[in-house]
Amino acid sequence: MQTLIQSVLTLQNGTLEAVDVLLMGDRIHTVAPAHTLPVAAHQRLIDGSDRLLLPGFVNGHTHSSQVWQRGLIPQLPLELWLANVFESTPRQLEQFYWGAVSTAVDTLLSGGTCVMDHAYVIPGQEMETVEALVRGYKAVGIRAVIAPLIQDLPFASGFPQGCLLPQGASPRSAVALLGMMADIVTTFHDPANGIYIGVGPTGFHRCSDQLLAGCQELSDRHHLCYHTHLLETRAQHRLAQESYGISAVQHLHNLGCLTPRTSVAHGVWIDEGDIQILAEAGATLVHNPVSNLRLGSGLAPILRCRQRGLNVSFGCDGAASNDAQNLLEAIKLGTILHRVADDDYDHWLTPEQTLQMATAGGARGVNLADRTGTLAPGMAADLVLYNLNHPSMLPRNHPLQLLVLGRPTDVVETVWVNGKTIVDQGQVQTIDVNALHHILARSVGAQGNQQTQHHPVEPHYRQVMIHGPGEGR
Amino acid sequence: MQTLIQSVLTLQNGTLEAVDVLLMGDRIHTVAPAHTLPVAAHQRLIDGSDRLLLPGFVNGHTHSSQVWQRGLIPQLPLELWLANVFESTPRQLEQFYWGAVSTAVDTLLSGGTCVMDHAYVIPGQEMETVEALVRGYKAVGIRAVIAPLIQDLPFASGFPQGCLLPQGASPRSAVALLGMMADIVTTFHDPANGIYIGVGPTGFHRCSDQLLAGCQELSDRHHLCYHTHLLETRAQHRLAQESYGISAVQHLHNLGCLTPRTSVAHGVWIDEGDIQILAEAGATLVHNPVSNLRLGSGLAPILRCRQRGLNVSFGCDGAASNDAQNLLEAIKLGTILHRVADDDYDHWLTPEQTLQMATAGGARGVNLADRTGTLAPGMAADLVLYNLNHPSMLPRNHPLQLLVLGRPTDVVETVWVNGKTIVDQGQVQTIDVNALHHILARSVGAQGNQQTQHHPVEPHYRQVMIHGPGEGR
Repeated sequence: MQTLIQSVLTLQNGTLEAVDVLLMGDRIHTVAPAHTLPVAAHQRLIDGSDRLLLPGFVNGHTHSSQVWQRGLIPQLPLELWLANVFESTPRQLEQFYWGAVSTAVDTLLSGGTCVMDHAYVIPGQEMETVEALVRGYKAVGIRAVIAPLIQDLPFASGFPQGCLLPQGASPRSAVALLGMMADIVTTFHDPANGIYIGVGPTGFHRCSDQLLAGCQELSDRHHLCYHTHLLETRAQHRLAQESYGISAVQHLHNLGCLTPRTSVAHGVWIDEGDIQILAEAGATLVHNPVSNLRLGSGLAPILRCRQRGLNVSFGCDGAASNDAQNLLEAIKLGTILHRVADDDYDHWLTPEQTLQMATAGGARGVNLADRTGTLAPGMAADLVLYNLNHPSMLPRNHPLQLLVLGRPTDVVETVWVNGKTIVDQGQVQTIDVNALHHILARSVGAQGNQQTQHHPVEPHYRQVMIHGPGEGR
Repeated sequence: MQTLIQSVLTLQNGTLEAVDVLLMGDRIHTVAPAHTLPVAAHQRLIDGSDRLLLPGFVNGHTHSSQVWQRGLIPQLPLELWLANVFESTPRQLEQFYWGAVSTAVDTLLSGGTCVMDHAYVIPGQEMETVEALVRGYKAVGIRAVIAPLIQDLPFASGFPQGCLLPQGASPRSAVALLGMMADIVTTFHDPANGIYIGVGPTGFHRCSDQLLAGCQELSDRHHLCYHTHLLETRAQHRLAQESYGISAVQHLHNLGCLTPRTSVAHGVWIDEGDIQILAEAGATLVHNPVSNLRLGSGLAPILRCRQRGLNVSFGCDGAASNDAQNLLEAIKLGTILHRVADDDYDHWLTPEQTLQMATAGGARGVNLADRTGTLAPGMAADLVLYNLNHPSMLPRNHPLQLLVLGRPTDVVETVWVNGKTIVDQGQVQTIDVNALHHILARSVGAQGNQQTQHHPVEPHYRQVMIHGPGEGR
């Protein structure tokens, strides 16, 4: 199967150019100046006029099952929000299947071709949960990395001075979790079919050193992405000081957990030294600007990260903390938000830069830079064709600025993943999207007034984080 | 003409309730508990199941002609961005007509029923420009306040140490401008038909005291909204110190320009004393979060404003500094952005609060609180019906959180302005929207690479604002 996309605008080396692109099988075969490739009878020919072709974005961090908690959780900081999320998390395997399908659809229709699902898995049904997720992603045909959330420390350990709290049930041991992860890798890691398993320790605040290091050993053995939450909140920053006496980044580095296969989500509270360590390790920071604002986590130092050579990509984060799952929205906010941190406009991110971060940067963050994220011969045909005639892309000014700084809606016309046409004429081709919407609409949620849930840990949180001594960065 | 909307969710006193709403003529006649109003044969009956009914939002600050500059201007701070905007501003009256039409359509389809157009007007064709805008807004049928931008100081006066710059052409005198404004009021102020003229001195940085005070006199005489830019940037904050030795807010207050009819756009750099003065005057601050980030202007102290009793509403600002004109996007960002400024989540804005700001708060900001912005008997029937069955409003959790914190798309089903159905089944009924898109698509813009425009004032700006001594708030 060959497809020739003729004379389409794309971003090449930071500038817009019209090119011909030939797809052959699952790969990009040729990229050539516009109107220079011959047309053959057996090819599908696509007229690229008034179209923009970009590598698919990577949603570098989300939690697919939170689709069911979209719009549900009140206005709370991470630590208290999490208590609400736990209480309302789905418990049925079919909800996980549909959560993956919904996440895949939202990703595709906002320009993505790959998703990192830092996946909640049902305790005691971990294999079954991963099976449901794999089934969902394969049904849609998106490229997916599934990193099950694992932790061996109790919920209370995620709070500064958490030793003062009831410790609750102990999770499974590091040894048991690592054994389970080895089984999951053996059973589900399937690069040939676009499904990858990652190791996803929840974060240093919920994981022992044994688990953190054991995950690294698994990552090394199977060449897997290592994905973890890192310093999302001020509370976690304080916790690291309590737990280690050194920064959490230095601690992870000492454990050997920072490599080019590592991606850390958030990093809102990393400092200059942390940035240096992460950059030198060749790791990736996944920036989740919408979620960081929704949870009041703060402003990640994204401009400084990039200035120091640290790879930065974008994530939506789960639907319980970003009640939309739209990559273009996350990219827009990530482009303009950080201007508040630096008056010198020469340092501000441009749409060209943030598109690069969302594509090539994102691919590197999920350990797939040799496969996806770049429009070049030999790379996987993971591509998105945008319709520049759509009203939200008018008037015809700068297409990249309209895509990133506007509010593009229904502009994704065609999406290829591994050379297969997954979206055409704006419609997902592989599954019945109406069935998905029917399932979501059937949910009996809290359609009414939402009361802030007061959790037993709240007085402790207020005492330690709100009324306690202030702490600067 | 009567319309009965039966059993529809709405926000009453901060909580969701199902009600019946009867519209009669141009007004809301009755609001009653669900299924209590009798159905009459001559009524249009609307089933409110799975629907949310809110008063229309007010877009409290925009510049309609910038529709033509959407996606055009590179990444620059206000003062340098402005130089680019001037150079690319439209010059044809028909562009102003279509700019008003486009702004009205974008407003309606994102939940608005009223727009404050702080309108650029073609020098020497001011009356004709306002005529074109009025024609555009009347064609669509939206409620509009048109406040022509006027200034009597040259462009250079908007820069700190602007006396060092070439002064350029002098604008018209205060006397001439005030005479022109009096003519515009006489000719176009037409409350009975939903068209209002406001007085809109550009800002203290481009206006003499004579002009600022003369505008107030006009406002007093005709009971007009007084609308002006205020302390949008750090440069303006510095300029106020240079020009007055006191804060710009205190200066406007001393001139008598702060009343309950006053709305000021931005206020990013107001301090505690300024907030107090504005609150005591009963003025309104129009918050434009997207534009403030796009131009790197900073974070307006919105939480403090509200804590001090200052009315805050929302604006999109013009399409050259917010390349979308979507009120729901501005409200979402305004809801979550300010959490970075205050760790105490008890102070964070809720969707219920920001919807109130966008409706009743917005109406107060355009001096129309007695007419619109509230769902109550006797108020104008300026209402928006949202479809909660749309995929972007699923699953069925909290509809207000989904509307404000999600990314609702195509959810506006019906819009009434002054009792007239302007949007039905998601389609604007009054004009041919395809004709608008055709006109916008015909524009020959810079569809290609965008180079940062280096303006002659740039070295001065860098010297004074970037390399000069730092200045805290």
